[in-house]
Amino acid sequence: MSKSPIDPPQTLPWVGDLPGHVLMIEQTKLPQFEELEVHDVPGMFDAILRLAVRGAPAIGVAAAFGVLLGAQQRLQADSQTALDATLADCAELARSRPTAVNLFWALDRMEKAARNAHSRGLAGLEYARHLQSEAMEIYEGDRRTCRLMGEAGAQFIESGMTLLTHCNAGALATAGMGTALAPIYTAHAQGKNLRVFADETRPLLQGSRITAWELDRAGIDVTVITDGMAAKVMQEGRVDAIFVGSDRIAANGDVCNKIGTYGLALAAQYHKVPFYVVAPLSTIDVSLPDGSGIPIEERDREEIAFGLGRQTVPTGVQVYNPAFDVTPAAWVTAIITEVAVLKNPDEAQIRAALAAG
Amino acid sequence: MSKSPIDPPQTLPWVGDLPGHVLMIEQTKLPQFEELEVHDVPGMFDAILRLAVRGAPAIGVAAAFGVLLGAQQRLQADSQTALDATLADCAELARSRPTAVNLFWALDRMEKAARNAHSRGLAGLEYARHLQSEAMEIYEGDRRTCRLMGEAGAQFIESGMTLLTHCNAGALATAGMGTALAPIYTAHAQGKNLRVFADETRPLLQGSRITAWELDRAGIDVTVITDGMAAKVMQEGRVDAIFVGSDRIAANGDVCNKIGTYGLALAAQYHKVPFYVVAPLSTIDVSLPDGSGIPIEERDREEIAFGLGRQTVPTGVQVYNPAFDVTPAAWVTAIITEVAVLKNPDEAQIRAALAAG
Repeated sequence: MSKSPIDPPQTLPWVGDLPGHVLMIEQTKLPQFEELEVHDVPGMFDAILRLAVRGAPAIGVAAAFGVLLGAQQRLQADSQTALDATLADCAELARSRPTAVNLFWALDRMEKAARNAHSRGLAGLEYARHLQSEAMEIYEGDRRTCRLMGEAGAQFIESGMTLLTHCNAGALATAGMGTALAPIYTAHAQGKNLRVFADETRPLLQGSRITAWELDRAGIDVTVITDGMAAKVMQEGRVDAIFVGSDRIAANGDVCNKIGTYGLALAAQYHKVPFYVVAPLSTIDVSLPDGSGIPIEERDREEIAFGLGRQTVPTGVQVYNPAFDVTPAAWVTAIITEVAVLKNPDEAQIRAALAAG
Repeated sequence: MSKSPIDPPQTLPWVGDLPGHVLMIEQTKLPQFEELEVHDVPGMFDAILRLAVRGAPAIGVAAAFGVLLGAQQRLQADSQTALDATLADCAELARSRPTAVNLFWALDRMEKAARNAHSRGLAGLEYARHLQSEAMEIYEGDRRTCRLMGEAGAQFIESGMTLLTHCNAGALATAGMGTALAPIYTAHAQGKNLRVFADETRPLLQGSRITAWELDRAGIDVTVITDGMAAKVMQEGRVDAIFVGSDRIAANGDVCNKIGTYGLALAAQYHKVPFYVVAPLSTIDVSLPDGSGIPIEERDREEIAFGLGRQTVPTGVQVYNPAFDVTPAAWVTAIITEVAVLKNPDEAQIRAALAAG
């Protein structure tokens, strides 16, 4: 088995010192490769809202960088004015996507850093440097977390396996090599011979446009299927394991993830295919006892009716477009985090992992 | 409850006497309404292949009309030449879609009619009239069959119910009011208050483009969802029954239908949602003991990668595109045919229905 380096695309690096900007891959355009420079808070709000950047961990990093973009524009402000403006930026960015808990987690960290800077009387460049340091820690922390999840998850992958994934929980959903795809990149780098089915993932096709793009770019054998084919390829006995990410995990292990995951997990359960959820601890929201309390974002009709360049739903016909669904913990073989693998996840394991993390 | 007439669109009427033509709704263009005149065998072959006409019963009628279109162009031919040409037309049309058993059933009827005409020494217009009579019988028989299935299926629909359907097994899949949608049209005409979820049905979106179009046109409340949302709306407790059609049913009741049906049936089974298959007896293929022998057509990569007006799969990435899957008979609440409702279908019931039909 030949080994290869892990070299996934860089989704949202910070470019330059201060003032700097974020250089994104414009994910709405993939599989056409296009870059997007983000220079201010409205630009970051728009990028998150439009899904130019998406994936729970990447959204967290994007929000943190967004706060920094705001701060670096106010180098002349006094400490109180800077703090007030940062708090307003945090409140604004928090309105961009309601489901991703990482967004709030990252904004909370940035807010604390801002309050800390203010309490120390920092202003101008010093204030901005303090926020820069926190944002870079979130960024580097996410990259490290991806590596750790990749190593933990790769132990469940043997050479010759065919894996299946839904949506994109890859490099393009994080600052690093991804959540669900991290074990796949790691196993590939270990020289294991893999094949991956990628659900195209309607309505926004993150699977065909993004997952297939980044796996193919990394030299991993990937085949795109429509979402309705996943149960059939399991029926055909062609899937050895499923790896997905998560947007929020409740205290009992219920997993909120991209719409379609629930049906996929049900099919995995029926066909006895191991179903792995790969997610950092920051995804876990212990304030929610189970998945029933997770708010499910409903998105625009247009994503389904016009999302692909032509009208596919008759004018005037209703559309229901929930962005996520919730898979019961009982159907999850293991939650793979950066500190522990939680087999048959339950509240006790989750609390222990959080205590260790 | 106010009653309304049943007035679904006419999918493929024969226009004129002899020579006449078939006036189709160009289904690849829906929800944009466009008509297509078909005048000859290559035109009909192309229409079936491109899915300008689709749906197992409609394909059967289309093939029968295709044979007639060939015959009416040879009014100067002697009886043997006419028969030879008709047999060649049948062989040609049989190559258009491999899975739909109705295609072979209709072509078989037309071939027998041609042999019968030849054995009686018919030629020219008389030969064509003989084929016309058989084709119109297939056409009218399909319309009658739809009405009977509609009446049989409507008894399972109560006012206030929400139904779910996959792909298009409606008026646009038949010469009449459809298979799966016939009970829905009939219940609606009986004044029952209904709501329908239509799976969009990737890759070709027959659900959003065609089912939603025809139900909305008929004044039935329809909401489009992506295929991955069907399990979620069942999880939400919002689906009272599922109605689907079928492209082929094996002797034991295993049901071949549009890709995605298998996962849908699994979710229905788990959520205890009744799962009805509505199909004429001509869909049943007793030569196949179970579903494992049903040939599954694999269609072009382009349907998934470029099917909607823009590229959604990276160049060079593989695609798997099976057009159908097979649902085990055990998950089917009932098969609704024109002669009987087969609850918990099995081989004995199926053979009895065929003997009665």
